[in-house]
Order: sequence, then C-alpha cells, then structure tokens
Amino acid sequence: MLITTYPSFREVMAKGNLVRLAGAHSALGGALVEEAGFDAVWASSLEISAGRRLPDASLLTMTDYLAAAEQIQSSVGVPVVADVDTGFGGNLNVAHMVREYERAGITAVCIEDKHFPKMNSFVDQGDQGQILMDAEAFCEKLRIAKSVQESPEFYLIARTETYISGMGTDEALRRCAMYADAGADAVLVHSKIKDPSQVEEFLAAWDGRVPVVIVPTTYPDWHATDAHRAGVSVIIYANQALRATVQAVSDTLRVIKEKGTSTPVEDEIAPIAEVFRLQKLQAWTALDA
Amino acid sequence: MLITTYPSFREVMAKGNLVRLAGAHSALGGALVEEAGFDAVWASSLEISAGRRLPDASLLTMTDYLAAAEQIQSSVGVPVVADVDTGFGGNLNVAHMVREYERAGITAVCIEDKHFPKMNSFVDQGDQGQILMDAEAFCEKLRIAKSVQESPEFYLIARTETYISGMGTDEALRRCAMYADAGADAVLVHSKIKDPSQVEEFLAAWDGRVPVVIVPTTYPDWHATDAHRAGVSVIIYANQALRATVQAVSDTLRVIKEKGTSTPVEDEIAPIAEVFRLQKLQAWTALDA
Amino acid sequence: MLITTYPSFREVMAKGNLVRLAGAHSALGGALVEEAGFDAVWASSLEISAGRRLPDASLLTMTDYLAAAEQIQSSVGVPVVADVDTGFGGNLNVAHMVREYERAGITAVCIEDKHFPKMNSFVDQGDQGQILMDAEAFCEKLRIAKSVQESPEFYLIARTETYISGMGTDEALRRCAMYADAGADAVLVHSKIKDPSQVEEFLAAWDGRVPVVIVPTTYPDWHATDAHRAGVSVIIYANQALRATVQAVSDTLRVIKEKGTSTPVEDEIAPIAEVFRLQKLQAWTALDA
Amino acid sequence: MLITTYPSFREVMAKGNLVRLAGAHSALGGALVEEAGFDAVWASSLEISAGRRLPDASLLTMTDYLAAAEQIQSSVGVPVVADVDTGFGGNLNVAHMVREYERAGITAVCIEDKHFPKMNSFVDQGDQGQILMDAEAFCEKLRIAKSVQESPEFYLIARTETYISGMGTDEALRRCAMYADAGADAVLVHSKIKDPSQVEEFLAAWDGRVPVVIVPTTYPDWHATDAHRAGVSVIIYANQALRATVQAVSDTLRVIKEKGTSTPVEDEIAPIAEVFRLQKLQAWTALDA
Repeated sequence: MLITTYPSFREVMAKGNLVRLAGAHSALGGALVEEAGFDAVWASSLEISAGRRLPDASLLTMTDYLAAAEQIQSSVGVPVVADVDTGFGGNLNVAHMVREYERAGITAVCIEDKHFPKMNSFVDQGDQGQILMDAEAFCEKLRIAKSVQESPEFYLIARTETYISGMGTDEALRRCAMYADAGADAVLVHSKIKDPSQVEEFLAAWDGRVPVVIVPTTYPDWHATDAHRAGVSVIIYANQALRATVQAVSDTLRVIKEKGTSTPVEDEIAPIAEVFRLQKLQAWTALDA
Repeated sequence: MLITTYPSFREVMAKGNLVRLAGAHSALGGALVEEAGFDAVWASSLEISAGRRLPDASLLTMTDYLAAAEQIQSSVGVPVVADVDTGFGGNLNVAHMVREYERAGITAVCIEDKHFPKMNSFVDQGDQGQILMDAEAFCEKLRIAKSVQESPEFYLIARTETYISGMGTDEALRRCAMYADAGADAVLVHSKIKDPSQVEEFLAAWDGRVPVVIVPTTYPDWHATDAHRAGVSVIIYANQALRATVQAVSDTLRVIKEKGTSTPVEDEIAPIAEVFRLQKLQAWTALDA
Repeated sequence: MLITTYPSFREVMAKGNLVRLAGAHSALGGALVEEAGFDAVWASSLEISAGRRLPDASLLTMTDYLAAAEQIQSSVGVPVVADVDTGFGGNLNVAHMVREYERAGITAVCIEDKHFPKMNSFVDQGDQGQILMDAEAFCEKLRIAKSVQESPEFYLIARTETYISGMGTDEALRRCAMYADAGADAVLVHSKIKDPSQVEEFLAAWDGRVPVVIVPTTYPDWHATDAHRAGVSVIIYANQALRATVQAVSDTLRVIKEKGTSTPVEDEIAPIAEVFRLQKLQAWTALDA
Repeated sequence: MLITTYPSFREVMAKGNLVRLAGAHSALGGALVEEAGFDAVWASSLEISAGRRLPDASLLTMTDYLAAAEQIQSSVGVPVVADVDTGFGGNLNVAHMVREYERAGITAVCIEDKHFPKMNSFVDQGDQGQILMDAEAFCEKLRIAKSVQESPEFYLIARTETYISGMGTDEALRRCAMYADAGADAVLVHSKIKDPSQVEEFLAAWDGRVPVVIVPTTYPDWHATDAHRAGVSVIIYANQALRATVQAVSDTLRVIKEKGTSTPVEDEIAPIAEVFRLQKLQAWTALDA
C-alpha cells in the first residue's frame, strides 16, 4: 500500500467547484502551475512534444509522455491529468497505458477518439481533416481502460474531436453519451473555432450524465465564470505557459546576443534566488544540517 | 562511422572568434539558443536540475543529465557543451562519462574541481564553503578523461572553483596550469563576486596555454567585447533563459488564474503558429505528402 | 564526425560470406553473442519484450526498444541489427525511427509489413490471422526511411510476413521485388512452418536483386551451409538465447529453493570470475591504477 | 491513495518465517524468481550492472538501478528488495533515493557502509581493500533515510561490509547495533570467506534487536535450515540466476555457431510457448477478445 502526498483528480472533482488546469511539460512548469493556484496540472502532449522539438504527432512515445507526467507529479501537490492522445495505439496499448500511468501515480488521463498516429488538433490538414475512430471502437477502448484500472480513484476523460473533424453537435452528443455509458468519468469537447458557440450548443443539449471539460485555446474571451454557468466543469489552459516560455526565452536571448551583456534583461527575469526557492533548496539543505 | 549534422565544439573554437553560449534544459530551449545566434548550447546542470525541480546538488544522475544533453544535441545544428559537474564521482565515473557522452554525440564537456556530490556554486554555504579536490587528484580525472576519448574532436573544459572556494588568483593560476598540462582543452574560471575583478586578475597573469571560459552571472555588466579584449575566449550565459522562463510562466499563469481568461496575455505570448514552426511541423508533414 | 568502434552492418555484409546473427535483449546477451563468434547481434523485439515480461505486441515503445538496442551496441564490437517491428506507427514514425536509431549508432534496422500495433508472428491468431499492410503503402514507408537516413552506411531490411499471413510465394516475390525497388537493402522472408520449403520455393524464384535474410525458428534442421547454398545471405537465430535463459534460470532457482542451498548448482553455472570477465573489470580497474 | 497488487516486504517479514530472496536484473528474471517460490526479488547491483556489461562499481546510476527495480516490481506479485549500494552518494542522495524508490512502489532497500563510488565486495582489491564509512556518518544516512520515508511500510536494510574490509566481529556487532538504533529495520552482515564462521560468530553474539540478512555466495554449503536455526531471518541468493544465464546462453550460442543449426540445443531450451506463458500472452489477448 503506497501513500501519495497529493489528492487524486477525482477528489478534486468531488469538491464540486469549477476546476481549472494549466499545461506544463516539466516539473518546473508543474510547480509554477500549482503556485499560480490551479487545481491540477495538464501534462500536455503539445507542450511535451514541443519541449522535445518534435511535432505533436505521436512521435514521442508513451514512455516519453509517461516519464514527463511522472516527473511533474512527483514535484507537485496537486494531481496531474495526463494527455494520452489516442492511448498510443490499439486496445492493448490502452490497457498497458492505464496500468503504467496508474502505477506511476497518475490519477487521471484523457484519451481522444482519433486514430493512432494522431496529428495535433490545431494543425490545418486541408481536405483530409481529422478522421475519427468509429465511436463503438472507441468505446471498446474506454471499456478496456476501465476494466484494468486497479484503484477506484483512477479517472478517465474521453475527448471527442467531433467538431475538429468537421462534424456537428448531434454527433458530438451521440458520441459523448456513448463514451459516458462506456465508462468515461468525464467528456472533453474540443473546438477550434474563434468563439464558444460550438461548445455552448453542446452544453445546451447535454444531459449532464458526466462532467464536461473544455480547452478554450481559440476562444480565450469566454470567461471562466460564464463557461461554468453554461455547464462547464473543467477548463484547461493547455499551452499558454509554453507560449510564454517561447516568447520570453527568445526575447531574452536575442537581447543578450545583440547587446553583448545580460544587463538589459536582468530586471525582467527572475533572480537566481527564485530558482533556488522553486528547487526547494532550503528544505533540502536543512535535511543535512 | 557516424555522420553528424553539426560541427564539433572544437571546430567552433577553431574559427578564433569570441564564442558565446547560452544555457538550456530542453531541446526547445536549445533551439531558441541556436535561433538567437549563439555559437553553442550550454547544457546547464542548474537549468536541468531546476527543470526537474531538484537542487543542483548531484541529485539528478549522469543518466538524467546525459539524456537532457542528448535531447538538445539531437535538435540543434550547433554543438552542445555539457556541464558534467564533478564527472559524477571518481576516476572510473569520469571515464564512463566521457565514453557515454562521446557515444551520444556530445563533442564537449566541462568538469569541475569540486567533490562529488557537489552543491551549486551560487549557494551560500556559510563557513563550510566549497571544498575543492586536491589539484593533482583532479588532474588524474582529466588525464583519464583524455585517455579514453575515442575521437580527437572531443573537447574537455576544466573548471576551477578556486575563487568560489575563497582562494585567490595564485591558486587559480596554479590549478589552471596544472589542468592544461593534464590535457584540458580549455579552463573555466568561475567567480561569483559582483564585478569581473577576479577574472581580470587571472587573465592578466594567465600565459594563455589554453583558452579561458567565463560565466558572468554575477557580473553581467562586463561587456562581451571587453571580456574578449581582456583575454576571454568563451562566455557562457548560463541561466538567463531559465530565469526568463520562470518569470514569464509565473506571470502568465497568475494573470489567467486571476482574470478568469487568457485574453490579457494572448498578445504577450507566442502564437501557436510559432510553436509549430519551432517543432518544424511543415518539414515533418512534407515528408508524408 | 564521430568515430565508432565497430563496423557497420553494411561493412559486414560487404565481405560476401554467410552472415549469422543471434538475438539478445541486453548488453550482456549481446556480449555473449559476440563471444560465440556471430557476425552481428539481433536486437529482437520478442527478446526485449519478454525481458520486460510483456507480449511482443507493440506494447513496449520505440523509446524502450531503442534504449535496449543502444545498450547492446555500446557494449559490443559487432554491429547491432535492430528489429523495429512496423516502424512504430505510420510514415512519420518511420522517419523518426530512422533518425533516432541512426543517431544512436545503430547501423541496420529491420521493418516489417504488418500493421501497427503488431502481434508476434508465432502467435496463433485463429481465423483472423496476420493482416499485411498494402504493399505500396509499405513501400512508402521504405522510401521515407531511405530519404531521411544521414549516412550511406545505414542499412534497411524489409521483412515480409507474406507466408505468416497465409499467402503464397507469388505474393512474397511480388512484395520483395517492390520492397527492393523502394530502397530496401535486403529482404527478410519469414516462415513459421516446420520445414524450409516456403523459403526454398521463394529462393528458387528470387532474382537476387537484394540479399535474403531468414529466421529459422520453426525449421532449425536446415543447416546453415544448405541455406547458404540455396541463396540465403543472412541467418538470424532470433530467440534461442532467451529460451536458454528461461530454462537455465528456472532450473537453477528451483533447485536452490527446493534443496535449501545453491551447492547442487554451483558447478553448472558460471563462476563469479566469469561475470567479472564479461564486465571487463580488469580493464576498468587498470584505468585507475 | 494508490493500491498496490503485491505485499510490502514488511508484510512478508511479519509472517515470521525464514525469508528467501533470489537476484534478478530484469522483469523476466523477477518473474522466474517468483515462480520458483522465493518470497521476494533481490534487485541486485551486480546483476543489473552485469546486464549492462559494466562493472559493479557505481557506474550505473540511481536512475538506471531504479528503472530496473521498478520494471521488476511492476511484473511480479512479491516485493522487490532493491540493492541501493551506498545510497548513490551523500546524505542528500540518500534522501532523494528513498523518495524516488518509495514513489516507484519499491517497499524495501538495502544500503551499505562503503564510500561512493563503491567497488563490488567480491573484487580483490589487494592491500587497499574496502574502506568503510565512519559508522556515525553512516548512521546519519540511515536517520535521514528514515526521516523522509512517507509510508510506515518502507523497510530499510543496513548492510555492513565490516568482514569484507578485514575487520572482525566486535566491529560488526558495534556497527550493527548502531545501525539498528539509527533506524535500520534489519542488518545485512556480508562475508566472503568460504564458510559461514564469521556470520555464525556474529549471530552467536547478536542481541537480535533487528533481523539479520545474509548473502551466502561464498559459503553455499550452509543449508537454509541451519542458517535459520543460527538466527538468520533472510537469505539472499544474489547472483546464481545471472551465472546460470551466462553459462546457458554461452553454451547454447556456441553450439549453434559451431554446428550450423540450433537443432542440438532445441530440447535443452524452453519452447517458445513457455516464453509466451511468461509474457502472460493469453491474459493480454483475452482483454481484446
């Protein structure tokens, strides 16, 4: 019997409040998500693959994504929700994934109804578009995932790419109902249009049999309070931290290179002492006093 | 016979110009260093350990540091210089380190004259301070490192913590001469006072038998051109990118959390398209056209 | 430019002799393959997955298989030929695989014409059987693999599961010709019947445009010399070492458990000194003398 | 709260019977240890380093040893006891080790009173010999280990190399008493002479404040029942499985190479079906039926 030092995602959900997550791709990023007051960390495939400078296209493997999620979870006191894409292959891969993630102390994963290998949802794929798995075949993945989980705490989010693939609300509703009935603990309804209208249409018709999760990357203006009132239970700010990193590191390095000194940036970046604080240096050295 | 797609660090040094490096802890960070125009990437122990939210105190292992260096090197067209701390233990660990790093395609490493396990040089350790290895024992590490390298390209930087440990210029000069004679291809003279006076004193007396590397974290005002004129061959901006990340991610996440929307930060962070560009998405998808 | 301390598989093939490989799943296993006089080591998916106690069904990832292959290659003076199953997914996964394996110093890989996720060829799958990829789609994988390789040394073996899937010699010949024309440096013709008749039929009609590789697991009686005369260039003894391990470890442990002492097995197992010899202990300690 | 599917080592010890372990370096090896009826698996540093073809001299890192232990533990229903050598460095390394092993589901570790980097106890080191840590300094490692453990289940074995270093029973008793008082849950008394006389002398004088563990590699004739009667609680057969592997794989491969066929060994090695059984193939395919 292992004791964990963080609540499960199910426990966080049980409080009944709006739950907000932010994306990270490293333990440091996870720590900053926690410190900013988010309820959980989203171990984002886009962030993790970008951290490795590879497209978010199933090139990194379950081994890589799990290692990243595990490193984050070992460093924070809030639960990690791991983005597991398609489950990394077929039904057996999904079973293996659940076992490995659960064993690693991850209490929630999110699996999506695209084919392996996937391509990131925001990538324009022209006429080809995103082709979804057959809904029943995806339900089989969900049933297998639930059948192998060891702990009742483990939480499975089923993500539908219905809108991403160009289909409409009826299909999104049909799929999400099937996914919930197959055992999903929540559904994530993804949309990449510039306003929340697709998601609002979904929520207006959704019978609420399980909570709804959204990722408002392309419709940031929808305020959390409004989304919550419309029926959203979980909001994931999936990639803003990554994008902040890209901008800040790029700007900082260019200044240093051009100016021949880091003086101009010193006041805009965290001091070394802040890095030491995040590393919990004091607690570590106190162990050895 | 393997073909690498980047120059070795020795080739970069051979051009005779001032060489500038910036620190990174991920492939993404390495890409941003390269794009900003730096000549090489510093796979910094402080950055890499901070990325894992652990102190820079030999807690992460050679396996971890090598994996990070390798991930960076596989993603950039400039050489990585790997911060290998003490060489991760004794003489055999140093030999193992050289073999593993060289095999992984890393063309330069930097080893320092502290004892394993080390503590980061900027950490105030009170009366205890940093205690250096016996100089001759450290030379033995350097000789072993050079004796096992396979390729003449491999480049070994010996870093002295003489000033960090509270000793003076005579000892720094004595050690660096010994290190060069033992086979070091360059010496890194570290200092943590607020101006470059220690390093300047060293350079004024140094006979130049091998190039000198500096890390001006605490004396950023010393302009690269001035340092170069004073005799510096390599400048490492070791942790500014990490500190930029901490500041920017922290600020961005706090705004999102407090405002209930990411709208206020959207114009200050890179767009998703910039992330895709860094992931080389277009080149990848073109492969499969 | 890195220098490797072992010949490439292409160099081994260039000698023109019958080339024999044996399977391994660890550096130790690779060392024993080399010491027994084999020309190269087969980094077998069956062995590696069995080493992790998982079915050979694409559950372990490219990350896992590559780490195993790399650990073997770093320990032996003969080339490793890596079993890469289907290439771990689609076309982009194949491109990523070639880059990562080549970067890791692996000079040859073998990719097969099954769908991802695969199931081991010796597993009876009833009516369902093994379903092959469309031949032209597999050729696309081969072309992409060849297009991204950096070194002309890199060697690509295309494995057809035509016979395993229940089809005949005409289809095997058609596929292998297509695969060779798409850039495969050799073809592996797999068969799981109890005699070499399928392979002999293939060889009798094969025009020899690229060399032929076999894995005589189910037809061990076919002597290497006879196979060579019939046109075989490479023989892989893929899993005998694994099976020897299972038998010996099982027998040894049972005796110790039942007898209450290891005395009865001591004369049948290698002495500790032999373990030290395989670890190259003397060479390591000599470094530090 | 996570649920594990195996008892902790403390639970195994609580039964009060003689506890027997055998060494392994892979999940497969661990499965064979469990199937032979042993009570726990010894994740042996000698085995794991030999599996990587490296000397047992602190060259592999905590990351490597932990990954091996974790892979074994994830595959068996008995607890793994991890050989953690010196704790991989100083006091902070020990604290980090306990946190990482515990988080990975390992319920027992064994730490020894040698300096980092260590050399295997059976290696003849001439006049130099093995030099032990100061006993009080080692007690500090033990206290720190106990202070950071999260679960009361975690079990810490302190191993003394007193006899290996050439000292006698008085010192062994003094050290083991100190180690027990510092929090060790058991002591391992190592000896490398050809009979159990050192261990017997220790046991005759030991006050039993914690259980005693032995590794009878050099005195295999001492029957488990006799050892138990003399006061031994745990016997570790540390490397016999590795040595069986070396002998069997070597013999098997040489025959295949020399005879030009695997026919002569086929009856002496496990059939493929046995490999499939160990991989739990049937249970996996049943998931997807």
